[in-house]
Amino acid sequence: MEYRIEKDTMGQVQVPANVYWGAQTQRSIENFPIAQDINKMPREIIRAFAYLKKAAALTNLDAGVLPQDKADLIGQVCDEILAGKLDDQFPLVVWQTGSGTQSNMNVNEVVAYRAHVLNGGQLTDEKKYLNPNDDVNKSQSSNDTFPTAMHIAAYKILLEVTIPGITKLRNTLDAKAKAFMHVVKIGRTHFMDATPLTVGQEFSGYVSQLDHGLRAINNSLAHLSELALGGTAVGTGINTPKGYSENVAKHIANLTGLPFVTAENKFEALAAHDAIVEAHGALKTVAASLMKIGNDIRMLSSGPRAGIGELYIPDNEPGSSIMPGKVNPTQCEAMTMVAAQVMGNDVAINIGGMNGHFELNVFKPVMIYNFLHSARLIGDVCVSFNDKCAEGIRPIEANIEKHVQNSLMLVTALNTKIGYYKAAEIAQTAHKNGSTLKETAVALGYLTAEEFDQWVVPGDMVGEVTGQ
Amino acid sequence: MEYRIEKDTMGQVQVPANVYWGAQTQRSIENFPIAQDINKMPREIIRAFAYLKKAAALTNLDAGVLPQDKADLIGQVCDEILAGKLDDQFPLVVWQTGSGTQSNMNVNEVVAYRAHVLNGGQLTDEKKYLNPNDDVNKSQSSNDTFPTAMHIAAYKILLEVTIPGITKLRNTLDAKAKAFMHVVKIGRTHFMDATPLTVGQEFSGYVSQLDHGLRAINNSLAHLSELALGGTAVGTGINTPKGYSENVAKHIANLTGLPFVTAENKFEALAAHDAIVEAHGALKTVAASLMKIGNDIRMLSSGPRAGIGELYIPDNEPGSSIMPGKVNPTQCEAMTMVAAQVMGNDVAINIGGMNGHFELNVFKPVMIYNFLHSARLIGDVCVSFNDKCAEGIRPIEANIEKHVQNSLMLVTALNTKIGYYKAAEIAQTAHKNGSTLKETAVALGYLTAEEFDQWVVPGDMVGEVTGQ
Amino acid sequence: MEYRIEKDTMGQVQVPANVYWGAQTQRSIENFPIAQDINKMPREIIRAFAYLKKAAALTNLDAGVLPQDKADLIGQVCDEILAGKLDDQFPLVVWQTGSGTQSNMNVNEVVAYRAHVLNGGQLTDEKKYLNPNDDVNKSQSSNDTFPTAMHIAAYKILLEVTIPGITKLRNTLDAKAKAFMHVVKIGRTHFMDATPLTVGQEFSGYVSQLDHGLRAINNSLAHLSELALGGTAVGTGINTPKGYSENVAKHIANLTGLPFVTAENKFEALAAHDAIVEAHGALKTVAASLMKIGNDIRMLSSGPRAGIGELYIPDNEPGSSIMPGKVNPTQCEAMTMVAAQVMGNDVAINIGGMNGHFELNVFKPVMIYNFLHSARLIGDVCVSFNDKCAEGIRPIEANIEKHVQNSLMLVTALNTKIGYYKAAEIAQTAHKNGSTLKETAVALGYLTAEEFDQWVVPGDMVGEVTGQ
Amino acid sequence: MEYRIEKDTMGQVQVPANVYWGAQTQRSIENFPIAQDINKMPREIIRAFAYLKKAAALTNLDAGVLPQDKADLIGQVCDEILAGKLDDQFPLVVWQTGSGTQSNMNVNEVVAYRAHVLNGGQLTDEKKYLNPNDDVNKSQSSNDTFPTAMHIAAYKILLEVTIPGITKLRNTLDAKAKAFMHVVKIGRTHFMDATPLTVGQEFSGYVSQLDHGLRAINNSLAHLSELALGGTAVGTGINTPKGYSENVAKHIANLTGLPFVTAENKFEALAAHDAIVEAHGALKTVAASLMKIGNDIRMLSSGPRAGIGELYIPDNEPGSSIMPGKVNPTQCEAMTMVAAQVMGNDVAINIGGMNGHFELNVFKPVMIYNFLHSARLIGDVCVSFNDKCAEGIRPIEANIEKHVQNSLMLVTALNTKIGYYKAAEIAQTAHKNGSTLKETAVALGYLTAEEFDQWVVPGDMVGEVTGQ
Repeated sequence: MEYRIEKDTMGQVQVPANVYWGAQTQRSIENFPIAQDINKMPREIIRAFAYLKKAAALTNLDAGVLPQDKADLIGQVCDEILAGKLDDQFPLVVWQTGSGTQSNMNVNEVVAYRAHVLNGGQLTDEKKYLNPNDDVNKSQSSNDTFPTAMHIAAYKILLEVTIPGITKLRNTLDAKAKAFMHVVKIGRTHFMDATPLTVGQEFSGYVSQLDHGLRAINNSLAHLSELALGGTAVGTGINTPKGYSENVAKHIANLTGLPFVTAENKFEALAAHDAIVEAHGALKTVAASLMKIGNDIRMLSSGPRAGIGELYIPDNEPGSSIMPGKVNPTQCEAMTMVAAQVMGNDVAINIGGMNGHFELNVFKPVMIYNFLHSARLIGDVCVSFNDKCAEGIRPIEANIEKHVQNSLMLVTALNTKIGYYKAAEIAQTAHKNGSTLKETAVALGYLTAEEFDQWVVPGDMVGEVTGQ
Repeated sequence: MEYRIEKDTMGQVQVPANVYWGAQTQRSIENFPIAQDINKMPREIIRAFAYLKKAAALTNLDAGVLPQDKADLIGQVCDEILAGKLDDQFPLVVWQTGSGTQSNMNVNEVVAYRAHVLNGGQLTDEKKYLNPNDDVNKSQSSNDTFPTAMHIAAYKILLEVTIPGITKLRNTLDAKAKAFMHVVKIGRTHFMDATPLTVGQEFSGYVSQLDHGLRAINNSLAHLSELALGGTAVGTGINTPKGYSENVAKHIANLTGLPFVTAENKFEALAAHDAIVEAHGALKTVAASLMKIGNDIRMLSSGPRAGIGELYIPDNEPGSSIMPGKVNPTQCEAMTMVAAQVMGNDVAINIGGMNGHFELNVFKPVMIYNFLHSARLIGDVCVSFNDKCAEGIRPIEANIEKHVQNSLMLVTALNTKIGYYKAAEIAQTAHKNGSTLKETAVALGYLTAEEFDQWVVPGDMVGEVTGQ
Repeated sequence: MEYRIEKDTMGQVQVPANVYWGAQTQRSIENFPIAQDINKMPREIIRAFAYLKKAAALTNLDAGVLPQDKADLIGQVCDEILAGKLDDQFPLVVWQTGSGTQSNMNVNEVVAYRAHVLNGGQLTDEKKYLNPNDDVNKSQSSNDTFPTAMHIAAYKILLEVTIPGITKLRNTLDAKAKAFMHVVKIGRTHFMDATPLTVGQEFSGYVSQLDHGLRAINNSLAHLSELALGGTAVGTGINTPKGYSENVAKHIANLTGLPFVTAENKFEALAAHDAIVEAHGALKTVAASLMKIGNDIRMLSSGPRAGIGELYIPDNEPGSSIMPGKVNPTQCEAMTMVAAQVMGNDVAINIGGMNGHFELNVFKPVMIYNFLHSARLIGDVCVSFNDKCAEGIRPIEANIEKHVQNSLMLVTALNTKIGYYKAAEIAQTAHKNGSTLKETAVALGYLTAEEFDQWVVPGDMVGEVTGQ
Repeated sequence: MEYRIEKDTMGQVQVPANVYWGAQTQRSIENFPIAQDINKMPREIIRAFAYLKKAAALTNLDAGVLPQDKADLIGQVCDEILAGKLDDQFPLVVWQTGSGTQSNMNVNEVVAYRAHVLNGGQLTDEKKYLNPNDDVNKSQSSNDTFPTAMHIAAYKILLEVTIPGITKLRNTLDAKAKAFMHVVKIGRTHFMDATPLTVGQEFSGYVSQLDHGLRAINNSLAHLSELALGGTAVGTGINTPKGYSENVAKHIANLTGLPFVTAENKFEALAAHDAIVEAHGALKTVAASLMKIGNDIRMLSSGPRAGIGELYIPDNEPGSSIMPGKVNPTQCEAMTMVAAQVMGNDVAINIGGMNGHFELNVFKPVMIYNFLHSARLIGDVCVSFNDKCAEGIRPIEANIEKHVQNSLMLVTALNTKIGYYKAAEIAQTAHKNGSTLKETAVALGYLTAEEFDQWVVPGDMVGEVTGQ
């Protein structure tokens, strides 16, 4: 490989000849050979940096501290980054400095050097037209840019991937709830037969879970909308022009189309990432919901002959390499595995979030890595589960009907007629004898066959079923 | 010990002669000898049950399905429970059935049998005036009462213990922030010297963390305000009179003075406890904040001679059994231990919350046990930390001033004058030579002594300090 | 209440007149009003302190630095503590100083003052015959006593509660495995019907899990057997007589009958509690096993009419307050709730364990509190589950047989005869048509009815069943 | 793109023309569009599959159920996989079926079709010389191959990456401990000044932590060495020739050079992954150690002028994009972030591990993904930290000496001379007056200056320092 020489404040570094990055990026590659093939700094963070570097340039231009041509060049490279044209220029990993300084410098260097080339220069020129620190990073510090990029990336992925994914699944489940609202089935509590409800009622519970989950995510957006930019090194805003914080937030809001504002308190915004901890608290809540839904659906579709077998789910692939003809609830499995992962990610985020010290939290990369992972996984798996499983769900009415008819817990309808104790005696006796409720009830002399038929009607035991 | 005989649907049980509980409570004592001395069902749950049993009785009275005298008796015993007069009648542990059925029955039995005695009966009467199932539990199931008690207890403790505790600490920290707003100190990032800020600015970050934490808790209250009661066995409301759900929620709201409403979806309310998962997500966020605050304050007060020594905190007790005269930041330690506990509790809640199946989540007791533990710990430790530590904090100005004067990072003020690279050279040279910034800057010829004095003024590097 | 005045190095304190504790204990009560009714320092720690205080006195006596009569008095009070006679003298909570100094001093004070009374003195005497620091705490520091008490308590509870509990359940499951070794049942993978195995084989898997779990616990004992005592303040052993560390460990081993040794490295033993983190790693592994076992057994016993219904488990109590005659797998629920709790406790321990700093970890109380909680819960719940559930398990052969006969996955036996693809076609066709494997196989012309009967024999598909 | 048509038991699928994979792999790509760019099934698993497929072929050859030429072809492709020549043929993600069936089939297809080409065939041939199920997967199921691959991959990465990485760091720290064994420094407990120890003693604690961590990892290897292969579908070994399990384990041991054996109980080996839970319990213990070490070293090297400043660590890169000349403990940050990640991974593994049901755990991919992530991160970060930080550590003796001389806790040496209470008075008075211990001690009249000089000698307070 051919190299060129780049310099930073610590001296010279050999850099591959044709890359846009410079000395500090190269140092980081060499200093952090940690899981380099699997843990690159997430692309969402790089893109978020492009927004903020462009916004910073515009704000510096507004303030008269950066000339028009430099601002234009910076903006031009940022647009290239956003278009995905420079993806291979960001080789750093998550496991670097905890402030993300090296990724900030990676962006500063790539923007400065690519701009220099766009401006007609050569990568081998010792002096570039833009300086990574003095121009691209002007009025900024890693300490305020990286958390700003965290919030931009987090907010965007929630809006673009997570919320739409959950919403898609929620809508399908809601349609199923309505479609199956009158299919009476046996309820199950403690895994044991209970009183009946309808399949639609059961599904309405999943919809309600996701609705509340979406509300929880939405509640967390306000804190995420606060941007650290303008705090610079320790939150005081040293080396920023007047009005910078508010103005740069406006530019970012404008560029992203999202309601970002400057953080009310910059000291918090650098030293703590409670917004990430809080918002991931909403994601873990959704993960709990998805585990419930995935478990229910795979158990309700279990069988085909020695399980519950009340729901049909689509056959997407052969299920077994040894058992011919087997079909498995694989979308449920992907979803429940995602739920487990999100719960793990939550703990990594908590530990990072609780270990900021003084003016800076230095667990930034690990926090946002886990956050973006969860947000992406939830969004993707909801879509996958929706498209390949939920949309195809339908009740297997024969099994459902059989289970309702056999159930001993229909006896509950008698509580208000003959009291809990006699009703219990009927159920226990029928269970012991393997007899039906009706014959047992009559045999015990607690009611007549006619009364039984009148009082014990599964369809009357499910309450109101309209308007769900 | 003397015994009497009680019965339930499974037969006879020997019960201590003088207790108000009956057969099912006694079975549970015998069936679950698990950590009985340390893990009683939390008292908050028992009290919450008292509210809901009274409310149910009133609602049943309204609906004409319970006579006035029985409703009155039930209410009377519930008032005794709320007054703490029957605390020793609730011997069951957390580690029972996962629906909390046995604690629901414990309450049903105690209310019925105590009412019987209040009504002039004897505990040894075979037939009691009130029946635990048919009267006290009328229009109810464990499956909707226990989650209702969970929400009542959770909401109440957040309002009565957690939020006031956090608020008290927040207000003290805010007063400290204002009082110390002009004390210029060295900032620290990555544990390394950075540019200055004021002690008040630093404290304002803590205030902002707690303000956001309080907002997160408040956001979670809406979901907690939804009550499952009226769903009965599986969410359909079987065996409830018309209008029961809405009316019983109104009675509970009235009795507690809190804005409870009936859950929009009862199937979710029984089968999932995402409201608890979500609300504890807010508590874990506060725990992350408390860890940060506790760590900062103990490190800033470290020393007295070989540490940072910038903050004085009160000496509450001798710190060491072997090192005479030692004083330790013990309130910080209690607070950070609480933070660790809350993070653990969060995982227990997540696992419980994700493992509901079909129509019922049967991790109810473990979930609410951990929730109440966290809510209580956070509230209590904030008050303890506030009273015994935060209120006594004051800056040690001599040390603060010395650290500011020595700092090499004041060089940052020169970035906009001579550029990042030359400024770096000054700092690196001063560091290597053990010299001051000023003499180094002048020696390197980058600026004059006058310029240095004019440009490098710590008090000018902290931004706006008013209006925090 | 009446009071007396006690003193420590910070001055005078009012103490209830008749308690054996002194000034420092009283300060702690007042300084840490945090969850005082529910989170007392675990009794196991107090008992462990009694062993070590007695051992320290004997070692000091051996070394000639403590007179015989004082050593005797100390030993006498320690014996009273071990006999449970002084339980009410230890009122402090977990949420105190992170080194446990106050609980160490609580023990020092109670031993000194009780000894003074045993020696004929009065609690109101200003000067006591033994001094809490100079005599009872001689050659010790909280920093080495508390971790020593942690290891003693942890080791003891594992040996006395946890391991016996797991072993009891393991043995019952092993007996069940042997008893049911020839009961052929349908296997289930992905919740879907699979090839057959026997009930005994299935149970042998649970036994193997617990066997490996017991091995994991045993592997962790070596690290727990290392005692910090002799390290005193920072690990250097300042203020200890020659040979103290080894000798005091010998005395503790002798008094407890357990193979304790002095830690090879005292600096680790004070500053880190990896032994606790590691040993709890074994406990969480067992928790994972218990969750699996509890889930399996409740799902296999689900029904009675709309579930799997292959196992009978004992009916211990009425299962529902509203559904008469319902019986639930409540022991499984207690066990799976315990599993969730242990997983949460693990995280609290991890966070405590990773946050030691310099010469001392100050998350000691929260770590041992969670450890003892888990160890106790696992031991207790295994016994409860064993006695009230596992011992009564028996297969419901009618259901088991029906599931085997219906299963489509018996087709797997044909893979080696006709290949995976044709076998799959048979299974899929039978599933679609609701027909039996045999009639489908013959209709498709892939084999004769005789070949089917010869090749597809469930009992031949379960491999070796002896010697499990 | 050009395509060819492949078939499986569910029908035809369009596959890119030039890839070696077939219908089932292609279905999985289309069915699981979940984080496809970031969560490929780890390469270590693919390699492990190559070992086991080759071993299975050899075992089938031994048993006479696979012809020599087919066994040779399978072995040849497996060797290509191990050499990394077919890396791009494994496009599937972690978030697939929870048994890993699709990755097993991916390997089966690639081996079969690549072998067909090696054998002179064309990818477009409808019939290939080897059949993925009947030949490559002969005597196997996903249910036993995937867990076998998990154990092979886990064992190998621990031996090849994790243990060597930890050992390298351990050895460097041990060399530092020995080199600095006589540098007396002030101890710190509760972040507060304590009695002295030496820098070498402090480092010996880190060494002891890692030694115990290595022992914990080694203890976990036995369970990992047990292989599921031979259990096939549900653990019974259906469709395997006699002696298969033992023989295939021998072949795997032979091919890998590692002491693998067949699992004593195959039912556990498929249905639970406690071995992974247990072994990761050791990894999380090491993570706790690394957090401690990383925190200590960054705090001890804090400053340079307003921190502790007792250790020099190498300057690897410019530390700040805004503060010129700043150097940060970035290797500590990468290490502590890794520790946070491992703790999160632990929870994901626990949740997966506790949720196996009946004959199969279907959280296999998420479990091994997190395990390999942790194992890799720990190994890599130990090497990075070692090479770029630990090796360059040296004490800054001027600061160390200053801190020792100033310390008030040297007073502890007087406990055995004048008692704890008088010693405390000296320390408290000196602290209040800002005076030295010596002048205070003499002024209070408790000892003479000569006695002070004789009794209070920091170098005498550190115990035995040889042989650590």
